[in-house]
Amino acid sequence: MASRTIRIGLIGYGVVGQGIVQLLSDNAATIEGRLGAPIEIRRVVARSPDKVREIEPPEGTLSFDPDDVLNDPDIDIVVEVVGGIEPAKSFVQKAIESGKHVVTANKALLAEHSELIEFAESKGVDLYFEAAVAGGIPIIRLLREAFSSDRIIALRGIVNGTSNYILSRMTVAGLEFEEALREAQEKGFAEADPTLDIGGGDAAHKLTILTTLAYGARLTPDRIPTTGIEDVTAVDIHFANRFGYVIKPLAVARALDGGKLDLRVHPALVRRGSVLASISGALNAVYVEGAMLGPCLTSGLGAGALPTAMSVVSDIVDVGRNLLVGAHGRVPSRAFQGEHLKDMEVQDPGDHRCHWYLRFTVRDRPGILARIAGVLGASTVSIEQMVQEGIGQDDGPVVVVMLTHTSLERNLMGALEEIATLDDVVEPPMALRIEED
Amino acid sequence: MASRTIRIGLIGYGVVGQGIVQLLSDNAATIEGRLGAPIEIRRVVARSPDKVREIEPPEGTLSFDPDDVLNDPDIDIVVEVVGGIEPAKSFVQKAIESGKHVVTANKALLAEHSELIEFAESKGVDLYFEAAVAGGIPIIRLLREAFSSDRIIALRGIVNGTSNYILSRMTVAGLEFEEALREAQEKGFAEADPTLDIGGGDAAHKLTILTTLAYGARLTPDRIPTTGIEDVTAVDIHFANRFGYVIKPLAVARALDGGKLDLRVHPALVRRGSVLASISGALNAVYVEGAMLGPCLTSGLGAGALPTAMSVVSDIVDVGRNLLVGAHGRVPSRAFQGEHLKDMEVQDPGDHRCHWYLRFTVRDRPGILARIAGVLGASTVSIEQMVQEGIGQDDGPVVVVMLTHTSLERNLMGALEEIATLDDVVEPPMALRIEED
Repeated sequence: MASRTIRIGLIGYGVVGQGIVQLLSDNAATIEGRLGAPIEIRRVVARSPDKVREIEPPEGTLSFDPDDVLNDPDIDIVVEVVGGIEPAKSFVQKAIESGKHVVTANKALLAEHSELIEFAESKGVDLYFEAAVAGGIPIIRLLREAFSSDRIIALRGIVNGTSNYILSRMTVAGLEFEEALREAQEKGFAEADPTLDIGGGDAAHKLTILTTLAYGARLTPDRIPTTGIEDVTAVDIHFANRFGYVIKPLAVARALDGGKLDLRVHPALVRRGSVLASISGALNAVYVEGAMLGPCLTSGLGAGALPTAMSVVSDIVDVGRNLLVGAHGRVPSRAFQGEHLKDMEVQDPGDHRCHWYLRFTVRDRPGILARIAGVLGASTVSIEQMVQEGIGQDDGPVVVVMLTHTSLERNLMGALEEIATLDDVVEPPMALRIEED
Repeated sequence: MASRTIRIGLIGYGVVGQGIVQLLSDNAATIEGRLGAPIEIRRVVARSPDKVREIEPPEGTLSFDPDDVLNDPDIDIVVEVVGGIEPAKSFVQKAIESGKHVVTANKALLAEHSELIEFAESKGVDLYFEAAVAGGIPIIRLLREAFSSDRIIALRGIVNGTSNYILSRMTVAGLEFEEALREAQEKGFAEADPTLDIGGGDAAHKLTILTTLAYGARLTPDRIPTTGIEDVTAVDIHFANRFGYVIKPLAVARALDGGKLDLRVHPALVRRGSVLASISGALNAVYVEGAMLGPCLTSGLGAGALPTAMSVVSDIVDVGRNLLVGAHGRVPSRAFQGEHLKDMEVQDPGDHRCHWYLRFTVRDRPGILARIAGVLGASTVSIEQMVQEGIGQDDGPVVVVMLTHTSLERNLMGALEEIATLDDVVEPPMALRIEED
């Protein structure tokens, strides 16, 4: 094996960047043994000299100018852990342009700019991004390599740890959404501004990347129908449980007959005892169904400095292995070789069919249920089960929950709009999809 | 990308061999897209012309002489799915000798002869074997690549689908061992001679391979303390459940301080609600705990023609990618580069410490429990919980179950030997380890 050193430049020195430095130092011998060459951190670019750092970068490597990495001809691999679109995008572009290989943990960047994946390939450099989706789950590698011989029928993930933590706490401890969110924030599982997590935007980013790899699709997150978990209440958790379900924050990609993709991010009811139902707390999981493979679930920590750093460094080792034998581009970044990413049609959400969980808050007056059932029936939505717990006190509202037979989303949504306008319906109806695997 | 064809020769044409031919035909376009070259099956070697085959090999490829593959200079990759030690070993050796790359699904061969892994490396050829352990779980790739930057603290697997099916059916349907075994045989989940599966031998083979990759250890299966599931009864399942546990067939490898390995194959109690407890039926799972990664579980089908064929073909694609860019040996077969496999010490089972589940069948006479507790206490085994259900009828035996505090296996086994000789103890005591993750 060539006796050389793999030289990296690290741009970004937050918790993940510090985790990378720590890991490369702690496991130096093992990594050198597995790679067949030492890894040298040549430059670490931090944003500001003032910031407190728990892990000091190797002596003499600290810089505050990204060009110290991007213009250094001796650096083989640029590791981008800045996050966000700009300036990270410019860094990655410039690195690729100058023939450097790139390892990044930046999901937003790759989801919004899949052209970077094609650009890296056109330049013959490796762009690896295992840490961009579910830090502690090697799902990128699985899709690019382990399942390369198979056709992916469907992929269902719990890819936002914050949302999963909140729904899990609502399930286990009976908390309301707001309480669970506050707890998640106190424990560091949720940001001060949790919009991207609980609104589903973060999951849509990750699903975009997974769909690109699983289906070779050119995609942006805005094309994925996305619903957050904000409207799920303790009452929904309670009734779901009564019917044998658990509410989970799902990201789903399915290949439909005719070449369309069914893409969705939303909370959904999954059957208690199913594999996805068992993924609780801040854990992430991706459940892949292959034509030959059958079902394969991988679960692990979705975020956190150390799992993310581990994935980044495993990518560095992989790119390093390519460097040592001159095999850049050995595995195409987009999983598919010989063709560009395909523009694929995403199914109109209205065309989606599934069983539904419906919750109505109504005044307990004679005839109200008949009117709701009538509107649903007129839209060809038929009720499979119905339950009303307790009776209205002093004319106060009662909650009625229904599970439907398989219904077209378009029909259901039309019916719910009409039901919302009925007298005695005191809150907008709640509808959640039931996901069967 | 070089415009060439990857040429394979398939030795072995049972269900897996036929699955490989089917998959290469069904998914030819996808695979070519992902690999960047077509894969040609140049020769298929079956054992006998008389055997009924569901999938016909490509025209003109059928042969009954392995040398038609081994001596064909145009064949790049030999795919060995014969199984067993000989003649498979000779085929693999000869292939490696003549510089051919090898993909195999043969766990017994690799477990008994890890020197083949070193031999392939010394010859600079790729030896890939994803399908050898848990067909539908890409654990080999995870250990060799995804977790290459991390230190594996422990690895716990359910790697024998037959044993898991039997214990699951005993748990869910309340069957006795013999009934569950018969059902597994009827459903094709157990062989006519199930010894290797239920006795733990198959799991020990797989654990040997996983340990080689996770720790770079040179090992043979006979060094792994192995207990089968044959002695687990419906009564044990019942009491385990009562204490909040499920009995699972585990294979465990742990790195101990001081460089020893704790290796074990045995049925064990795992906490209900834990990830391994949720792996039921014929599913397999491997739970890896990395120093940085934290916990990562992968579950899927452990066997079956199609998942196994999928793993074999993904290996062919990976070796093909190496061929196209001339990167053989890019990832060392043994995960570690630059040093040979290490001889590592395996902990004496007597030195293992854990909580224990104990079942005693005794005549319901005054003082018997005191005597049992006395013997345990004298061996420094202390009782955490105890339960006796029902009372003896007409002097018939009763069952007493205990959970112990953490105890040394050597002490416990000594005590159990003595207890077995006591008057009023009518059956040999049953002891099962409790595995906490």
